[in-house]
Amino acid sequence: MLDLAIVGGGPAGLTAGLYATRGGLKNVVMFEKGMPGGQITQSSEIENYPGVSDVVSGIELMEKWPEQCQRFGLKHEMVEIQKISKDGDTFLLDTGSETVEAKSVLVCTGSNPRKAGLKGEEEFTGKGVSYCATCDGFFYKEKEVVVVGGGDTALEEALYLAKICSKVTLVHRRDGFRASPATIERVKENDKIELLLESTVEEIVGDKMGVTGVKVETKEGSVDVDAMGIFIFVGYDVNNSVLKNEGGFLCDVNNWGEVRVDLKMRTSVDGLFAAGDVREDAAKQVVCAAGDGATAALSAISYVEGH
Amino acid sequence: MLDLAIVGGGPAGLTAGLYATRGGLKNVVMFEKGMPGGQITQSSEIENYPGVSDVVSGIELMEKWPEQCQRFGLKHEMVEIQKISKDGDTFLLDTGSETVEAKSVLVCTGSNPRKAGLKGEEEFTGKGVSYCATCDGFFYKEKEVVVVGGGDTALEEALYLAKICSKVTLVHRRDGFRASPATIERVKENDKIELLLESTVEEIVGDKMGVTGVKVETKEGSVDVDAMGIFIFVGYDVNNSVLKNEGGFLCDVNNWGEVRVDLKMRTSVDGLFAAGDVREDAAKQVVCAAGDGATAALSAISYVEGH
Repeated sequence: MLDLAIVGGGPAGLTAGLYATRGGLKNVVMFEKGMPGGQITQSSEIENYPGVSDVVSGIELMEKWPEQCQRFGLKHEMVEIQKISKDGDTFLLDTGSETVEAKSVLVCTGSNPRKAGLKGEEEFTGKGVSYCATCDGFFYKEKEVVVVGGGDTALEEALYLAKICSKVTLVHRRDGFRASPATIERVKENDKIELLLESTVEEIVGDKMGVTGVKVETKEGSVDVDAMGIFIFVGYDVNNSVLKNEGGFLCDVNNWGEVRVDLKMRTSVDGLFAAGDVREDAAKQVVCAAGDGATAALSAISYVEGH
Repeated sequence: MLDLAIVGGGPAGLTAGLYATRGGLKNVVMFEKGMPGGQITQSSEIENYPGVSDVVSGIELMEKWPEQCQRFGLKHEMVEIQKISKDGDTFLLDTGSETVEAKSVLVCTGSNPRKAGLKGEEEFTGKGVSYCATCDGFFYKEKEVVVVGGGDTALEEALYLAKICSKVTLVHRRDGFRASPATIERVKENDKIELLLESTVEEIVGDKMGVTGVKVETKEGSVDVDAMGIFIFVGYDVNNSVLKNEGGFLCDVNNWGEVRVDLKMRTSVDGLFAAGDVREDAAKQVVCAAGDGATAALSAISYVEGH
């Protein structure tokens, strides 16, 4: 029986593993099918993880974490958990081939931005195509960028970018936005944001250095928009499938499928914790996920000790 | 008028400054009377900040933060804010000599563990005397330690230490504990915890290398307890005085004076945020405070943008 099963091996899972084992929990396993490090390892440039002052790649940022976090006994199993359930006080984790028992479980499986499937999107990801304004907006300071999407996130990110960039062209395929009226109003009033409605991106164009612009199909025909950055916000998938059971979810989730937690990262189920991008109101930043992981581990230690 | 005033210059304040300025807020000032870095700079050994795999001192850990966090325009003023109030939508920060206006405010003034005033306490702080089991417990793995105190925190920290250390001697001046019955029960049932009740520490003793033991005055007379670590939990002071106004606190606080926040670090007052050890349910770890700071800054950006 594990003291703690950690499902997911990004910044939250690794930090939780460090804190849980350093705090005396025995038999702590982090289940991560791939290499530890998480989604951030796909990023090309990071300069906002406090304490790492150079601009580094995601792989460089996470390089030292596994060794540090596994130093106190955390084990990593390259296994993808299929389902988590609870029987009495015991959690059951289905690996597909066997069932692992645990006294407590931390879910930190993250979330993934959806690709828009645009021509050039794959090719220029990390070279101008981004899915996170907080992460990458600053790299386009005083430069022109394009935002693709028309939901709340797209509009909020466009407003965020308008504070940094010289111009934001918002491309949306419909005439109206699926966002809160106040946000729509602020976007429309913002001088730096130009709207291209009922329009779609035909192609992201660039050279060896990265993105240089976007071809947009508008009602009036095709137009070329200069831009060094393209921010795509067409939704994201919360990786909550491990929590899905016959009758719904194992614990409370919000309308977007994000796990509801309190400030101690406790879910609605005793002994079940969540951390990082899979939980509601996550800032989706490495340092925030890591903080969550530490908090969740301390809560798990207290829970295991009390049972 | 400042976009954001940050009150406090520890990991939360510095990270918030980085995120706020990198996110495009103008006129962001961090008010910190001393050198930035916070309480952690008093720690002698840290090995659980993810990404910093060596064992470093608190000063070494925080060394690079100010330069990195001020790179995007954050200003540091060596001023101690006396009081924060709100007039309409504008926050007023009283420096003692002038009033600074700000659209939004982040309070990250931390909290301080209380000293017990024991003989040898000052001398051996950082050399065996600690105020944080999560931080320092692991340095006493399989070793004997003493815990001083009888409240909830003292008992919970004794239980935490019992998972790591070979023996925990709990010294408490009264016969009973001021803690929840379940916690008291778990302490009494724990084989590794020995209770010395109606007892007080006369002196913390040691040599050049650090603490070697404690002289305890018990009902039966003086006894020597071997220990390499002494953990003191006799309460802590939440640095919330900037929020005190004539009629009470500017925003909601809990019974311990910690600021109530939601997962976005919003307090009960629009435009006022809190982060790090000053808020309720804080894990009191550098990485958690930093995560809070990033979260709070993103909330502040959104708030300022919307007003």
